[in-house]
Amino acid sequence: MSEIEVYKRQGFGQSSGFGSNPALLIVDFVVGFCDPNQYGGGNILDAVACTKVLLQAARNKQLPIAYTRIVYAADGSDMGSFCLKVPGLEKFNEDTPAGQVTPDLAPQAGELIIRKTQPSAFFSTGLAAWLVSKQVDTLIVTGATTSGCVRASVVDSMSYNFRTIVASDCVGDRALAPHEANLFDMGQKYADLKTCSEVVTHLENA
Amino acid sequence: MSEIEVYKRQGFGQSSGFGSNPALLIVDFVVGFCDPNQYGGGNILDAVACTKVLLQAARNKQLPIAYTRIVYAADGSDMGSFCLKVPGLEKFNEDTPAGQVTPDLAPQAGELIIRKTQPSAFFSTGLAAWLVSKQVDTLIVTGATTSGCVRASVVDSMSYNFRTIVASDCVGDRALAPHEANLFDMGQKYADLKTCSEVVTHLENA
Amino acid sequence: MSEIEVYKRQGFGQSSGFGSNPALLIVDFVVGFCDPNQYGGGNILDAVACTKVLLQAARNKQLPIAYTRIVYAADGSDMGSFCLKVPGLEKFNEDTPAGQVTPDLAPQAGELIIRKTQPSAFFSTGLAAWLVSKQVDTLIVTGATTSGCVRASVVDSMSYNFRTIVASDCVGDRALAPHEANLFDMGQKYADLKTCSEVVTHLENA
Amino acid sequence: MSEIEVYKRQGFGQSSGFGSNPALLIVDFVVGFCDPNQYGGGNILDAVACTKVLLQAARNKQLPIAYTRIVYAADGSDMGSFCLKVPGLEKFNEDTPAGQVTPDLAPQAGELIIRKTQPSAFFSTGLAAWLVSKQVDTLIVTGATTSGCVRASVVDSMSYNFRTIVASDCVGDRALAPHEANLFDMGQKYADLKTCSEVVTHLENA
Repeated sequence: MSEIEVYKRQGFGQSSGFGSNPALLIVDFVVGFCDPNQYGGGNILDAVACTKVLLQAARNKQLPIAYTRIVYAADGSDMGSFCLKVPGLEKFNEDTPAGQVTPDLAPQAGELIIRKTQPSAFFSTGLAAWLVSKQVDTLIVTGATTSGCVRASVVDSMSYNFRTIVASDCVGDRALAPHEANLFDMGQKYADLKTCSEVVTHLENA
Repeated sequence: MSEIEVYKRQGFGQSSGFGSNPALLIVDFVVGFCDPNQYGGGNILDAVACTKVLLQAARNKQLPIAYTRIVYAADGSDMGSFCLKVPGLEKFNEDTPAGQVTPDLAPQAGELIIRKTQPSAFFSTGLAAWLVSKQVDTLIVTGATTSGCVRASVVDSMSYNFRTIVASDCVGDRALAPHEANLFDMGQKYADLKTCSEVVTHLENA
Repeated sequence: MSEIEVYKRQGFGQSSGFGSNPALLIVDFVVGFCDPNQYGGGNILDAVACTKVLLQAARNKQLPIAYTRIVYAADGSDMGSFCLKVPGLEKFNEDTPAGQVTPDLAPQAGELIIRKTQPSAFFSTGLAAWLVSKQVDTLIVTGATTSGCVRASVVDSMSYNFRTIVASDCVGDRALAPHEANLFDMGQKYADLKTCSEVVTHLENA
Repeated sequence: MSEIEVYKRQGFGQSSGFGSNPALLIVDFVVGFCDPNQYGGGNILDAVACTKVLLQAARNKQLPIAYTRIVYAADGSDMGSFCLKVPGLEKFNEDTPAGQVTPDLAPQAGELIIRKTQPSAFFSTGLAAWLVSKQVDTLIVTGATTSGCVRASVVDSMSYNFRTIVASDCVGDRALAPHEANLFDMGQKYADLKTCSEVVTHLENA
């Protein structure tokens, strides 16, 4: 029996759907994660291009929009276990060029920038409270990497009971096998997978 | 270039190591997740057998030991998005036979039982505070499933800056491809992968 | 200059108001906190009587309703610092008569019971995620004690960006000076203070 | 019966003591909270002076040291309920002179600066994980205001099971009655109250 059949037989993979008040989250699409010579590669640049379309649609509908950046203190004071597993992360400081949101998706005034030191956009950040303040019930997630900070953010989004949508061609990874494996996990257990086009159509008709 | 080479070139997959005060976490090894006709299958029973060995070693060394169970309110009052994606989870109530820790790993008095409704053992539970009270710096993780609650718990454990060890043959999944894919992700980014035998040897010599 | 004038001059004590989707939280109105010979006394029984009126109004309007109980594991496995400061709390176990919600305010099926080990109803519990799932934007708080678990819950409610209302005659304390001092703090910084009657009128006209 | 007798009879006010690995937290001693014409006044400047002594002792013992600042985004994107109750807080931005740690207690490289938008130093911040990474078991708290961010931080510190010490002459408030009332609450339920001199003596002899 294939793995997909095991999951289907056990009742996984149902839809949690869209609610009525969505927001858009753009995870770690920063310069260093878009550059194949740093932490990028794979299908990340394709995902940025798709996200540009989705971002415009979200702005047209005046959705709440949030971006994450990895930001460690320049003096190393907040380094932790993550920097032991992935040395070099601690070089993403407030002013590091590699840590700025990619110019293709430049944030506008009033859009939220979340600084984080851990994979999830929710862990030790104000994201959950900000979504509460905006009365959001649905979080549309894009960003990099599918197998890393996107996945961690999606698990927490679902855990906070936001209906969670992964825009499947708006998330990317430096390697395709982890990208695909994590889309499978998220679609089976945590989020609905929708293409950029499907999400945009939904937003325009909502 | 293979995916492992991409990760290696970018500096992933270093070791965060063992600290000096480890604890053992056993995730969702409950009757219903050990039964292939419910939510089990794959290599889960093998992982239970290995965990039994590790549990004995942890008890010999008097490590803090915690187990998780999925427990929803019997009246459905705390159902959320997770139950939309995986209908049937809400049937794990306090007294549901399927939701009890498997008798092979029966908890002893003084070991912590964590009730949870979300994938991570840390989300909305007292686990982090309990580890603080025990002065733990290292969390050894076993349980089911590798691609679900184990992965989510490992990400949070690392995010709280615990050095995190995944006992690779003590975690199991209903399907092997997600098991392997998630071991890869965790080993590259969040935790050190060690066999049961390696962990037991470390504990005995520590 | 009196303290109230200092606060006024510095701009404290504005109103955060009611939103459109309120819920009711009833903190620790359990048998042992209603009994002057255990942890009760002061104006707690008066507050229970007022809360009974507010609870009925909330049910009439079908608001989401949550209750907290203090529940420690019977084997002492989850005792922590709170039990060092207040020995005896650890005797509130799942089946302890003193730890059951007072019969005057008996929960109905579908209303949420939150088990907690710390002062705040939000700390290490599913309350925030449950409020998200109900699309709540405003939390009305009642319970005991004003200077303890009510205050801690109100601070967290505000921190999660819920508009927070303290029903001032529905909260009580074993001693009146801390009751009054904490109403002052909460009204200046975290919540709007409204009488039971004012809240009921608001709900009926909303 | 006086309130203190009620608390004593019910068993409150025991000591949670010092552990073996303390850290120092300095809450919101920023320029605007030290200036009586902004958010300061009362005994805050006296508390700064005492904290200067304690900070030196902590540095001598190489304790982990953390400071908090209130920092909102300059474009107002992360304003929430707290700014409704206390308009003006949102003016504390990254570069606002009023929001910098007071020069009397200037942080040194390697000491942690926590940016926060809510009362507690723990809420939506990396403080708990940082304390885990330093293997801290005891948190010594100083800062302003006693009835606000100090109190909220102390409740969370205790909730995370850190043994918590309030350096009673190192915390201050713009008004003395709330200062005293909150010292009472914290001493009875959450933390041990020690003078600066007592804490310094303890550190020097530990």
